[in-house]
Amino acid sequence: MHITSERRLDDGVLEREFTLGEIPGILWTPASASASQPVPLILLGLPPLGLRAMYPRLVERARRAAADGFAAVTVELPGGGDRPRLAVLEQGRADLRRAMQAGEPVGAEIVDALVLPLVELAVPEARATLDAVLALPEIGGPVGYSGGVISIGVRLAVVEPRIVAAGLFAGSLVPRAIVEEARQVSIPLHVLLQWDDEGNDRQASLELFDAFGSKEKTLHANMGGHTGVPRFAGEDAAGFFARHLNARHLR
Amino acid sequence: MHITSERRLDDGVLEREFTLGEIPGILWTPASASASQPVPLILLGLPPLGLRAMYPRLVERARRAAADGFAAVTVELPGGGDRPRLAVLEQGRADLRRAMQAGEPVGAEIVDALVLPLVELAVPEARATLDAVLALPEIGGPVGYSGGVISIGVRLAVVEPRIVAAGLFAGSLVPRAIVEEARQVSIPLHVLLQWDDEGNDRQASLELFDAFGSKEKTLHANMGGHTGVPRFAGEDAAGFFARHLNARHLR
Repeated sequence: MHITSERRLDDGVLEREFTLGEIPGILWTPASASASQPVPLILLGLPPLGLRAMYPRLVERARRAAADGFAAVTVELPGGGDRPRLAVLEQGRADLRRAMQAGEPVGAEIVDALVLPLVELAVPEARATLDAVLALPEIGGPVGYSGGVISIGVRLAVVEPRIVAAGLFAGSLVPRAIVEEARQVSIPLHVLLQWDDEGNDRQASLELFDAFGSKEKTLHANMGGHTGVPRFAGEDAAGFFARHLNARHLR
Repeated sequence: MHITSERRLDDGVLEREFTLGEIPGILWTPASASASQPVPLILLGLPPLGLRAMYPRLVERARRAAADGFAAVTVELPGGGDRPRLAVLEQGRADLRRAMQAGEPVGAEIVDALVLPLVELAVPEARATLDAVLALPEIGGPVGYSGGVISIGVRLAVVEPRIVAAGLFAGSLVPRAIVEEARQVSIPLHVLLQWDDEGNDRQASLELFDAFGSKEKTLHANMGGHTGVPRFAGEDAAGFFARHLNARHLR
């Protein structure tokens, strides 16, 4: 892990850009974090539209995490942002775009061809990011996962024991294999669903929520379209992480 | 309105039992309430199992309301608790019980025959309760409606302008006419759904949520069966009322 730049935001949060091998990422830590008082970590779901394009939304969530005493980290997705394009994903994205622009229902084979390789590529990188960040003396775990591509969140929740709670954004472009995998998830979940999301099928989102094996799972459905998540929904999600990351941290 | 008994709970909340004509009820006010600082009011949905049977749950919600600076009131449903039985409701209840015990799906005619008369009888009594309670100098409004029989909540949200926000418990024994009426609701709503509620049909509950006309409506779905609403769901609901009743109160 190589820090490439570092600055303090006005609220005292330390923002560090880094590269992990070829992967660019950003780490935010609250002013309070230190080797003697290491803080829990939230992995902000890898940004599907690219780190730079999604920076304003990411930094807002990172500031909120810091206000609650948590560090936050995110990295660029495979093939995303300024990273080298990957043929398998480019083909999948083109097929998806074509179907959506034609107003056709997006078939399972298009979803599988794009999302399954993305999950396979992204999950090991996310876990390597945790290895690197948790090695820093001021970051102590446990880890929460928040947002991003929901299929990646499902796989991480199944395979990564350091993640103890996940806040997910409901989406419907989820391969059937991932819905099946969701039955193995057992950590507490907080799922946000935009009820009238123009880009997602509501019924498919409800089916995915139903599939999760977790004993504690909560669905928060709100109005406002795909990008219209209301401010108070962010407050409720912050409460979820405060409950699950602080409780373990203080043990 | 005739106060029949009065006591202070250990947290300073004033609990007053009263009768309004023949209707028994309970009013809780926070210690801070006074004529110079009147407080908003939460109408705790009329208790379907009777005031006495549901007292422990009601007083817990009233204490929480008081901690947030709100008074709370509830009254016995028509034909409920110690009130005289009403033939129309007794017949409806017997038919419902019979269908449920036989494990049959509860037909629309059974739901309509029980719930529509209950709504017709209960809503004017709830409004008369507001008239009486809001006349007290220490209660100032606005009013939130919370819980109870959801069909009564829907009708109240449509016809009672003093109610500015409603927290509802999703149920599926809702007449088709009430689902249609839900389209006229425009106040902010916070709807709790127990995802694996053995007594309610999930799909019907989701359809009712979808029908509400409100621009701000939120569905919180949780695990835990009919009576297993998790503690944190109560916190989120309290946040909803704090947002909507305080904001207007401070204007």
